[in-house]
Amino acid sequence: MLETLKQDVRRANIHLTNHGVDSFLRGSISAIDRVNSLVVISPSGIFYDEITADMMIVADFAGEIVEGALSCADDVKTHIEIYKAFENIGGIVSLHTPFATAWAQSGRDILPYGDFHVSNFRGSIPCSRSLSAQEIETDYEKNVGLVICETFQKRGIDEMKVSGVNVFNCGPYAWGIDAFSAVYNAITLENVAKTAYLTEKINPDVTTVSKAYIERNF
Amino acid sequence: MLETLKQDVRRANIHLTNHGVDSFLRGSISAIDRVNSLVVISPSGIFYDEITADMMIVADFAGEIVEGALSCADDVKTHIEIYKAFENIGGIVSLHTPFATAWAQSGRDILPYGDFHVSNFRGSIPCSRSLSAQEIETDYEKNVGLVICETFQKRGIDEMKVSGVNVFNCGPYAWGIDAFSAVYNAITLENVAKTAYLTEKINPDVTTVSKAYIERNF
Amino acid sequence: MLETLKQDVRRANIHLTNHGVDSFLRGSISAIDRVNSLVVISPSGIFYDEITADMMIVADFAGEIVEGALSCADDVKTHIEIYKAFENIGGIVSLHTPFATAWAQSGRDILPYGDFHVSNFRGSIPCSRSLSAQEIETDYEKNVGLVICETFQKRGIDEMKVSGVNVFNCGPYAWGIDAFSAVYNAITLENVAKTAYLTEKINPDVTTVSKAYIERNF
Amino acid sequence: MLETLKQDVRRANIHLTNHGVDSFLRGSISAIDRVNSLVVISPSGIFYDEITADMMIVADFAGEIVEGALSCADDVKTHIEIYKAFENIGGIVSLHTPFATAWAQSGRDILPYGDFHVSNFRGSIPCSRSLSAQEIETDYEKNVGLVICETFQKRGIDEMKVSGVNVFNCGPYAWGIDAFSAVYNAITLENVAKTAYLTEKINPDVTTVSKAYIERNF
Repeated sequence: MLETLKQDVRRANIHLTNHGVDSFLRGSISAIDRVNSLVVISPSGIFYDEITADMMIVADFAGEIVEGALSCADDVKTHIEIYKAFENIGGIVSLHTPFATAWAQSGRDILPYGDFHVSNFRGSIPCSRSLSAQEIETDYEKNVGLVICETFQKRGIDEMKVSGVNVFNCGPYAWGIDAFSAVYNAITLENVAKTAYLTEKINPDVTTVSKAYIERNF
Repeated sequence: MLETLKQDVRRANIHLTNHGVDSFLRGSISAIDRVNSLVVISPSGIFYDEITADMMIVADFAGEIVEGALSCADDVKTHIEIYKAFENIGGIVSLHTPFATAWAQSGRDILPYGDFHVSNFRGSIPCSRSLSAQEIETDYEKNVGLVICETFQKRGIDEMKVSGVNVFNCGPYAWGIDAFSAVYNAITLENVAKTAYLTEKINPDVTTVSKAYIERNF
Repeated sequence: MLETLKQDVRRANIHLTNHGVDSFLRGSISAIDRVNSLVVISPSGIFYDEITADMMIVADFAGEIVEGALSCADDVKTHIEIYKAFENIGGIVSLHTPFATAWAQSGRDILPYGDFHVSNFRGSIPCSRSLSAQEIETDYEKNVGLVICETFQKRGIDEMKVSGVNVFNCGPYAWGIDAFSAVYNAITLENVAKTAYLTEKINPDVTTVSKAYIERNF
Repeated sequence: MLETLKQDVRRANIHLTNHGVDSFLRGSISAIDRVNSLVVISPSGIFYDEITADMMIVADFAGEIVEGALSCADDVKTHIEIYKAFENIGGIVSLHTPFATAWAQSGRDILPYGDFHVSNFRGSIPCSRSLSAQEIETDYEKNVGLVICETFQKRGIDEMKVSGVNVFNCGPYAWGIDAFSAVYNAITLENVAKTAYLTEKINPDVTTVSKAYIERNF
């Protein structure tokens, strides 16, 4: 069942290791079969480079597990809400890389300071509002997904131009046309977050790039 | 003697290397046999991935070495005090990873700024008081253990909810149900310490997560 | 065609990986055949250590691809302008390593604070002016090359003494007598950028090295 | 000739790689034969893990090369001055690791903020005075050695208790009873430098450890 997607997600997990993401940072990678609305997601608690295709979990849009003996992170419910709202994406990565997560915890958007940022993310990488006590206590993971979609909708951001977000007090989510491009965007979001951090420390009066940069088609 | 525990500690040492902890940072890993009150601890001065099961040192609760040709770090005495006070733990890791140690040297608690922190540590990771000159001069390692237990008792912190601590002017200790979970908590404490550091630099006015986050059962 | 240069560029790409440069940082390495004014440049979108000699792209000074099935980064046009202006160099590296890029985004020169800097770069590593909206909208990559040359010419910097530059809002370019020495200078520029950053944080009142250091022949 | 020392230096170079020191940071490792006052030093421009014993350079106390086809770093002259003044040491490492070098460039001593520091270095790691223009222009490397010895003599520091130093505008030197212990101290100096940096950022009002820590025999 969904063998190709499972192999895609397996390979994407190996990329996390190859790009230096620690297995203890609780990353999840998923990919979606749009025909059947089924999500393939990696198991939790296994080192990224030891995950095999037959360990994958398959979930439907109700969040029910339809295949898989292992358990996955609860944030599969977050992934599902993102897939529902962003209809042209094929893969999602969530993790807690330190620089992106620090921006998420600080509650600030990651501002575009250079062409490396804007050639990957066409504008600020937004930080969502904080969740209410009720949203945390009941259906937390689903609400994280809903607040991501709300952020893009309210602020009029195109999810195909800015393929990542920070959730306040939580961390980054990134997506793409498939699992590999979601990993690329997640790693790039971390690199952009680190470089933006350093930029503000080197020059506290730095300003964002000009409009011409953001509108240019890289 | 205690072959299973020795293998557990050996494997846990390999995890330190795999997660990027430098062998020169003076880490020690131990596990306990609760039936006989015997502690298995890794030797000092050997690279983590070269430690074999028959190099392990076995010590009793008086701190006497009952097996092992090599020497271990003096802080076995710290581990023993922690095992005495925290009766449900099975493994302990001490080391000097840079971000956690910097918080220890700064004398500040690591405050909870996000769900990655609170899903692993259910509140601030406390920093102990400083040791007195007398506590440093006589029985230093034992006193480090005592001040850890004092910190949890005086502040009413449950060691099963916050599985780590910083000792002022010293560094982090982490524990868990076994040697592997102690390593997981030690590495996670370092990741949390790094992310908290960056968070305060990105937003000096940042506040800790709401009570709902800390009370939620992740 | 140009087999030796292709092997040089292939080996130089492996050095990027060996020195910890992430493949997702969009680095390009080129080398030039001065007799025929042909530039060999690595393909984009391939992991550095998987690039083979027959994947290389060959371009002429007009920017036309004369050999190669894969595509290369658009910044081949930047490389060509640098080769035209700096007639004694044989190799160029462009990338987005975090510390160098942060200085580029901050718009500040990297000042010489020690002998490691001045033994590799004989003075400040300059940051170019920002590009105008028109320069960004039309022929961006070529204009990046032109602004690099303008920076060295206007400020009277010898490109053989300072073998690297930062382009404002963009990132670092480094060069040398061949592809390997360009990689050496690119990695060293990143190390110098990191050390200068830390120096200013440790001592905000730090001053640059004395003239004797800059004039000394290391 | 001096085969054992050459193997010691070869193995010590491999440790630099294993502990993450980049080959481009211009590190040199030496060891001394006290009977004949001959110094074995690693060649420059070779990756640390590719250095073989027969590549080693042997120099006498006058700085003359008595064996070896390759060239070594000019700072062999610095090593020689240190060996002359510090008669009980057997190995020296010089390099440009970023945190230690940043302290060197900032002109500040690395203050002792914790037991990891004082169990390795029994007090502040001193930063030397700056060199005069004349000392830079003539016999620079020898003068770097002399200013190191002057620093320890004038300030009354015991080189067996504080086995490392920073040279203002230059970088760290570390030593020990042999090449391996010099590498251990060089890596530890970098780790201490990083942790001290972070400590001051987390708590700008931090104070050094009490006298009891420095006087304790770890």
